[in-house]
Amino acid sequence: MIGDENMRVLITNDDGIMAEGIAILAREMSKIAEVHVVAPDVERSATGHAITIRNPLWAKDVKFGDEFFGYAVNGTPADCVKLGVQAILKNKKVDLVLSGINKGANLGTDVMYSGTVSGALEGAMLEIPSIAISSCSNSQPNFSSAAKITLELVKKMDLENFPKFSALNVNVPPTSYDEIKGYKLTRQSKRRFQDFFEARKDPFGNTYYWMLGEIIEDDPGEDADYYAVENGYVSVTPITIFYTDSKFMKTLKDHPFFNSEN
Amino acid sequence: MIGDENMRVLITNDDGIMAEGIAILAREMSKIAEVHVVAPDVERSATGHAITIRNPLWAKDVKFGDEFFGYAVNGTPADCVKLGVQAILKNKKVDLVLSGINKGANLGTDVMYSGTVSGALEGAMLEIPSIAISSCSNSQPNFSSAAKITLELVKKMDLENFPKFSALNVNVPPTSYDEIKGYKLTRQSKRRFQDFFEARKDPFGNTYYWMLGEIIEDDPGEDADYYAVENGYVSVTPITIFYTDSKFMKTLKDHPFFNSEN
Repeated sequence: MIGDENMRVLITNDDGIMAEGIAILAREMSKIAEVHVVAPDVERSATGHAITIRNPLWAKDVKFGDEFFGYAVNGTPADCVKLGVQAILKNKKVDLVLSGINKGANLGTDVMYSGTVSGALEGAMLEIPSIAISSCSNSQPNFSSAAKITLELVKKMDLENFPKFSALNVNVPPTSYDEIKGYKLTRQSKRRFQDFFEARKDPFGNTYYWMLGEIIEDDPGEDADYYAVENGYVSVTPITIFYTDSKFMKTLKDHPFFNSEN
Repeated sequence: MIGDENMRVLITNDDGIMAEGIAILAREMSKIAEVHVVAPDVERSATGHAITIRNPLWAKDVKFGDEFFGYAVNGTPADCVKLGVQAILKNKKVDLVLSGINKGANLGTDVMYSGTVSGALEGAMLEIPSIAISSCSNSQPNFSSAAKITLELVKKMDLENFPKFSALNVNVPPTSYDEIKGYKLTRQSKRRFQDFFEARKDPFGNTYYWMLGEIIEDDPGEDADYYAVENGYVSVTPITIFYTDSKFMKTLKDHPFFNSEN
């Protein structure tokens, strides 16, 4: 627990509890809230919405020097949120779940794979207002500006009326705070990776593969998440835990399949 | 490769390549298609949409007796689909990705956590028609009836016009084929688990936690996925890889945040 205000915030991430981004976010949020950090013990990037069901979880105290920082869990971001709310905080009311600050963007189809986003979606599952935050550079992230943006966003959002089962996916340009142009409400674009595999031989003669990929950005538009970031804006995408494809549903509803008995 | 027809099908699962459900599905599909099995070497349930980015992947031949069955991969269902299409099948056209047959339901919010569903969503990412199939009982699944249902569905679906980036999540009642009443087009319900953690002490005095949960089914309606299955119907839910919450977006679009420069 850092800070001592009325608002109770649970913070997780997927880069692991020792990552710089989560420390900077926790410090910034402690200006306005009681902060609890529960995060993976090691990096769990690209874990999607994995949870741990076949093994138990441990939560170990982590100190920075002589100051208690939070709990390191041998699980995924989603595990950390569940365990944090339901065991560590003993189901006390949590006003907000934050997941981040991720080192690197979570734009377009990254959302499916992202452990950071899954931390926020798990908060949404638990009916808690939840926000995933990423600083959009793997090599030169700017965690301070992303932390300031998060604080600003949290102060202005109407958390009381945050819809159940929804979350926000926030991507911040990796520039200084002063260079950020503003906020754009965006949709998850179809920005994605064109993967390919590099085959090698291991010392025992077996083939193994490294996954590599190139970004495809073929979904332009003012409302595309990556477009906002590339143009200097914070991208704010409302997301849901419900994957139903209503358009596909419309095309299927007249299919004879669903209109006759077997 | 099993079978020798014109249609090329890639099959994965999250219960692992040695699971009964995938073998029965592969055999059934080989009646109409060239079948390629690429599946996790061990069970990867509840892996969500995890992918392997920090380690390489191996694909090992698996034989049943003297008959080649498929490739076992040290990765997740999503990894298997990527590696299967892009390395093992060398980007040859795949007409259909099937993921399953899962032992146990993938209904409601299971969809977020399910490795089975993520196998199908990865196919959708690769712009291939994709279907996840589950037999809705952990203790008494009926893989034969689910396999027959899959074959029937695949024969009648218009795969040529299957929408890009979408998939079907199919849940089959665990009864005999003859007892199944028909098909229902459904939405992903908010059926979910109310988790709780059981704390224990390890032999070294540290607390550890087992995650347990009880199902909450508070989302009734003819169109709810679990309702269809409970009433003896196959639930067919169209799902998408895009998580944008359009309802939340509408409420946010008048927020002063998005209408002023920073």
